[in-house]
Amino acid sequence: MSDHETAITAAVLVIGDEILSGRTKDKNIGYIADYLTAMGIDLKEVRVVPDEEVEIVAAINALRSRYTYLFTTGGIGPTHDDITADCVAKAFGVDISHDERAVAMLRSRYENPADLNEARLRMARIPHGADLIENPISKAPGFRLGNVFVMAGVPSIMQAMLDNIGPLLKTGRTMLSTSIDAQGTPEGAYATGLGAIQKANPGVIIGSYPSFDGKSFTNQIVVRSRDEALLQTARSAVEALVAELVAARPTKVP
Amino acid sequence: MSDHETAITAAVLVIGDEILSGRTKDKNIGYIADYLTAMGIDLKEVRVVPDEEVEIVAAINALRSRYTYLFTTGGIGPTHDDITADCVAKAFGVDISHDERAVAMLRSRYENPADLNEARLRMARIPHGADLIENPISKAPGFRLGNVFVMAGVPSIMQAMLDNIGPLLKTGRTMLSTSIDAQGTPEGAYATGLGAIQKANPGVIIGSYPSFDGKSFTNQIVVRSRDEALLQTARSAVEALVAELVAARPTKVP
Repeated sequence: MSDHETAITAAVLVIGDEILSGRTKDKNIGYIADYLTAMGIDLKEVRVVPDEEVEIVAAINALRSRYTYLFTTGGIGPTHDDITADCVAKAFGVDISHDERAVAMLRSRYENPADLNEARLRMARIPHGADLIENPISKAPGFRLGNVFVMAGVPSIMQAMLDNIGPLLKTGRTMLSTSIDAQGTPEGAYATGLGAIQKANPGVIIGSYPSFDGKSFTNQIVVRSRDEALLQTARSAVEALVAELVAARPTKVP
Repeated sequence: MSDHETAITAAVLVIGDEILSGRTKDKNIGYIADYLTAMGIDLKEVRVVPDEEVEIVAAINALRSRYTYLFTTGGIGPTHDDITADCVAKAFGVDISHDERAVAMLRSRYENPADLNEARLRMARIPHGADLIENPISKAPGFRLGNVFVMAGVPSIMQAMLDNIGPLLKTGRTMLSTSIDAQGTPEGAYATGLGAIQKANPGVIIGSYPSFDGKSFTNQIVVRSRDEALLQTARSAVEALVAELVAARPTKVP
């Protein structure tokens, strides 16, 4: 099977003014990225959009048509700014109404039936044709419609929902990854050699990632591939390059 | 001046496989969001795309045509996976070559001229017509072409570049923001009242943000507006709503 045939792709759509204003720092993108990568699903795009119907609907349609899966976070609570479910219905051109299964889930949360008021019942409004995704924390469910998975924005709830979604997903061949420390060699010293290794090893993806601690750079070279043998061949070449550059360093006079 | 006339908008484009694979957790989106919000610039969209030319070029063109400013992060180092400058040139349909000003900046970093090798000189490849953005940390500059600002992905360098970009930006009327603690009142209890306040106060944007500590929810209601008087009117209404709901709580028998 070629990589092209087996690639399972995904996008994430983060919905919320609070991320764009800086008030809330997103913690879901990185979590979902790790989760999908571990399952062999390639996260190919992320978008963050405000709580505006036109923007949300357009992003849902752009992303769901392009990738195997779309995961949304945010906008499924009881307040007026929670409009994700309506936007998904609009994007799919389906109706939306109170879902009896969702109402039952919410009922299980409130001892006093009067507490399940109109606002809370908003959280049971589900586009027609969707399957529910259980929420063990606050009961208000997420849902799946077609290839779109709608989750809460609160990280712990999103994570619990993702655990319920995981078993429903097609998994791909896991993308293997190996990291080589550049041992103090600067990017500019190994860039040409690394580019040549990338060219000679088209079955792997090689990235170079500098980090800066305020004083000096530390560089990691990451090799990724779905093929273990190709990965190891490229890793050996990178290790040899780094070793060669380390050996060639001018020895400092003590 | 209406809000519509004065709105200065922006998008952020994060470029890098490492964010999508989960290897690196983005720290730039939230920082830029805070920075722009403080300047009265509305961040309206964020995208994260992989190190693939077609994707980067398409995202640059989609975002630069739609918002006042586009800020990119990542992909301007010396290695083969650093293709942002070429993609910007392609998106604008301009040539790209070694920029003498950029070469001079890089020269200042290397005592030994031989260290400014071909790979490092890649970092001086700048699309024609661009202005450079100084990088006080590692010298390799960012640049501005039209309304697109190209920055490094390493957070400390990105932040230093943003400080150099700030004075070049048109600033808008600052979006004022005020936060009201819901004092333990659940979202579902105040959602209807809050929706009515939003409806009665079209000059403000009201959001409700729950957080969950593993045991219970804490809710913050955030009111935003560019008009101080409208902000205070809405804030008072929200405070009154919360006070009313707190007073109506059943008193627990000791």
